[in-house]
Amino acid sequence: MADKRFFTVAGPFFIGELAEMTGSELSDPSAAEKVVDDVAPLQSARENHLTFLDNRKYLDYFRATKAGACFVKPELAAEAPEGTVVLTNKNPYKAYAIAAQAFYPTKVREEFRAPSAVIDPSAVIGPNCHIDHGVVIGKNVKIGANCRIQPQAVIREGVEIGDDSDIGPNVYISHSLIGKKAKIHPGAVIGRQGFGFAIDPGGYIPVPQLGRVILEDDVEIGANSTVDRGSGPDTVIGRGTRIDNLVQIGHNVKIGKFCVIVSQTGISGSTQLGDYVMTGGQSGFAGHLQIGSGAKIAAQSGIMRDVPAQEEVMGSPAVPIRQFMRQTAIVSRMATTKKGNEE
Amino acid sequence: MADKRFFTVAGPFFIGELAEMTGSELSDPSAAEKVVDDVAPLQSARENHLTFLDNRKYLDYFRATKAGACFVKPELAAEAPEGTVVLTNKNPYKAYAIAAQAFYPTKVREEFRAPSAVIDPSAVIGPNCHIDHGVVIGKNVKIGANCRIQPQAVIREGVEIGDDSDIGPNVYISHSLIGKKAKIHPGAVIGRQGFGFAIDPGGYIPVPQLGRVILEDDVEIGANSTVDRGSGPDTVIGRGTRIDNLVQIGHNVKIGKFCVIVSQTGISGSTQLGDYVMTGGQSGFAGHLQIGSGAKIAAQSGIMRDVPAQEEVMGSPAVPIRQFMRQTAIVSRMATTKKGNEE
Amino acid sequence: MADKRFFTVAGPFFIGELAEMTGSELSDPSAAEKVVDDVAPLQSARENHLTFLDNRKYLDYFRATKAGACFVKPELAAEAPEGTVVLTNKNPYKAYAIAAQAFYPTKVREEFRAPSAVIDPSAVIGPNCHIDHGVVIGKNVKIGANCRIQPQAVIREGVEIGDDSDIGPNVYISHSLIGKKAKIHPGAVIGRQGFGFAIDPGGYIPVPQLGRVILEDDVEIGANSTVDRGSGPDTVIGRGTRIDNLVQIGHNVKIGKFCVIVSQTGISGSTQLGDYVMTGGQSGFAGHLQIGSGAKIAAQSGIMRDVPAQEEVMGSPAVPIRQFMRQTAIVSRMATTKKGNEE
Repeated sequence: MADKRFFTVAGPFFIGELAEMTGSELSDPSAAEKVVDDVAPLQSARENHLTFLDNRKYLDYFRATKAGACFVKPELAAEAPEGTVVLTNKNPYKAYAIAAQAFYPTKVREEFRAPSAVIDPSAVIGPNCHIDHGVVIGKNVKIGANCRIQPQAVIREGVEIGDDSDIGPNVYISHSLIGKKAKIHPGAVIGRQGFGFAIDPGGYIPVPQLGRVILEDDVEIGANSTVDRGSGPDTVIGRGTRIDNLVQIGHNVKIGKFCVIVSQTGISGSTQLGDYVMTGGQSGFAGHLQIGSGAKIAAQSGIMRDVPAQEEVMGSPAVPIRQFMRQTAIVSRMATTKKGNEE
Repeated sequence: MADKRFFTVAGPFFIGELAEMTGSELSDPSAAEKVVDDVAPLQSARENHLTFLDNRKYLDYFRATKAGACFVKPELAAEAPEGTVVLTNKNPYKAYAIAAQAFYPTKVREEFRAPSAVIDPSAVIGPNCHIDHGVVIGKNVKIGANCRIQPQAVIREGVEIGDDSDIGPNVYISHSLIGKKAKIHPGAVIGRQGFGFAIDPGGYIPVPQLGRVILEDDVEIGANSTVDRGSGPDTVIGRGTRIDNLVQIGHNVKIGKFCVIVSQTGISGSTQLGDYVMTGGQSGFAGHLQIGSGAKIAAQSGIMRDVPAQEEVMGSPAVPIRQFMRQTAIVSRMATTKKGNEE
Repeated sequence: MADKRFFTVAGPFFIGELAEMTGSELSDPSAAEKVVDDVAPLQSARENHLTFLDNRKYLDYFRATKAGACFVKPELAAEAPEGTVVLTNKNPYKAYAIAAQAFYPTKVREEFRAPSAVIDPSAVIGPNCHIDHGVVIGKNVKIGANCRIQPQAVIREGVEIGDDSDIGPNVYISHSLIGKKAKIHPGAVIGRQGFGFAIDPGGYIPVPQLGRVILEDDVEIGANSTVDRGSGPDTVIGRGTRIDNLVQIGHNVKIGKFCVIVSQTGISGSTQLGDYVMTGGQSGFAGHLQIGSGAKIAAQSGIMRDVPAQEEVMGSPAVPIRQFMRQTAIVSRMATTKKGNEE
């Protein structure tokens, strides 16, 4: 189903093979020998395709799907149309992710040095790296094995990047130590000096920003996002954390492991997030706050105080989500009543 | 009036010619033979200049203008100062746009291939294209006639771009089919993989993002904006739609025709907008929503539910605009009363 | 303390020297002959380090610091631990800034022209400029002395840049006159055409954007920020103003001197800010507004009306900050009371 101009499909696979690979149950064991040769969305899948149902909003599409096979939660299996083999799994989206990776495996890197790349002789670059056109790599940079550095990326003096990392085009990295399996999307800016200056009647006096950016292993930074380096302490992003597009991370921010930071979030200087924190799009954090592990910050929230672990907050200024819902309901009701009075 | 270092003016034009070109009425038909040789803002225009009044906020500037001629709505014509020829038009801003295009026509492209551009031999590039320094064009890319690809732009394998398109510097495009007359501003990132992963206690499992970005004809994408490709379905932006700077468009989003998406808006995955939708700056949309045609979303609104066609909404969470105004007024009044009590 | 891979320290300095340089008082004059050889944060500083206490939040770190010397406000000097020489100063952060600049002075530029830089023969470039790899400089561009133009930056026809400026990698500048000591961070886009078009049933008609961007001396523009050029009038940013990352400045906006515009702020077309205005992160301004000098705009505020000089406002729509606090308190109390009723 995927456009052949952009994607190359592997396969086909036996349905039994896919069930095993993903830890799913086959509703009809005799279907194990059937094959599917691609993945596709519920609406457009045909009998040779594998699909999934994750969001109940799309249940009607599931009932009408023409797909040959479908990952679905056990409790929804009975809704499957005839002709679709059901692969039940508690986490059908995860099962789909694993299967789709089998159909569309990551390409193996081929060693390449573009003639236009400017690589300082003191830089150390591991085996099987793909260094693309116009890349600039500074003094004493260290890049691990199997990395891709995409066109026009600029890697400044002293930066270290771990194995299997992918640095997008037009990315700028300075003053940073980057772990393995990093994925830095196009246009991201990592390690520029933070917004630090002393206020003085005669103007602003820049404060030398002497910290670094530390990205632990398996961190993803979205397109055109910006991560400022520390002012003295470091800016740190923990293992496995996913940062979306157009996000701003201020100096000295610490983000724990496996956080999800959705697009256009802004985190001010020196704020610390625990592990597994999720922030909705366009949420904003004042500086010097402590956000506990597992906290969930709703989209557009304005965080002005510490948030305890596991708390879900919403609003600007943010309050616990039930409190926010109550506030919203009361104000809405008052406005409706008032309207009745006026008319 | 425009700085000669940056702009080259055509003309002069007879006022009668400009009236005809823009469908305007001359208040004084005898003025048709007068000429103006440039356009200028109300405040700084002189007798050889053409200007316009669109926003009533600037009515005082109009009354005092030294301009030789001015586009204005018929009902305001009487406010013109002596010495200014009035060109009445129901849409004076549109009339000005047409006249200003005559004074400052788009330059004709000249065929050019920068020696530093890296163009895969399999790429097909139409006539009269300007391929600038440091551009990287991948395998099987197809670019139509009269296109400009500005410095350091990276166009990945399989991408297709229609005639008369202008791709800005440092732009990244992959997995995309782009129509005619596209205008992609500097630093935009189009077609990177969306923010898609399955959640698992052991980390996040990336879900291969197998869709594309489809830009229909005459679409504009602002500077440093990001448009993620579909996860399976496509991300689609309809004909004539204008997207401003620093906007985030998530995977599978569908935007209809002639929408206006103002700066720093964020639209989450799988949300669909009809035609002629307008979104104010910094507005945000949750995922999987339906926004009807002609809906108007005020700046900073947080859209958490479907919005019917033609509805105007505001607030976070957004409500119909009259409801929002009432809520704001009531809360404000309560706070004022309360203040009275306290003092 | 700073990582030697990224920073080169000068010094050591006598504490007496540092007191003199920063206008600070030594708590123990006999300590003037002691030396420190680096700066460091309160928590990690050791006896050979200089540090500072600015934010009372970190008072406990101050009480426990191992630093050899510390800038602090006079009223907190008594809290210093034994062994730490106290340098009292009304503005300890400013004192630290000056001292840290002595330890980490800006490198002197060395004249350099990368062989891959494409510089139009008509461009005039001052002495001691560092023009990096892949830079593109257009016709009649003028660049002052001691400038650095980082890799892949694109400077379009006619642009002028004053002495001692630093233009980051992947920056795009067109239609702009830029003063001395400008600091433009990576990925910023300055001078693209604004979001100007006339609305017409048949589509949007672009309005030629004939103004410029004027940056006065000593302006800083953050990473991936966008500053649109004027539509006829200019977009102007006043002397000493600091703009953070991912900020959008619309066409014709005027910003006064010494403003601080925090990350992800958006300012719509033709709005004018006086001097010393501060905007919190993610704040947004409608178009055609007047914001008085010294106004303080809280984070996430939505400014829909003029703001008087010195006013502090908050909320969306924004109101004076005391009014906002009252509104928030009342709504919060009502929701709490309501909760009591329900349970």
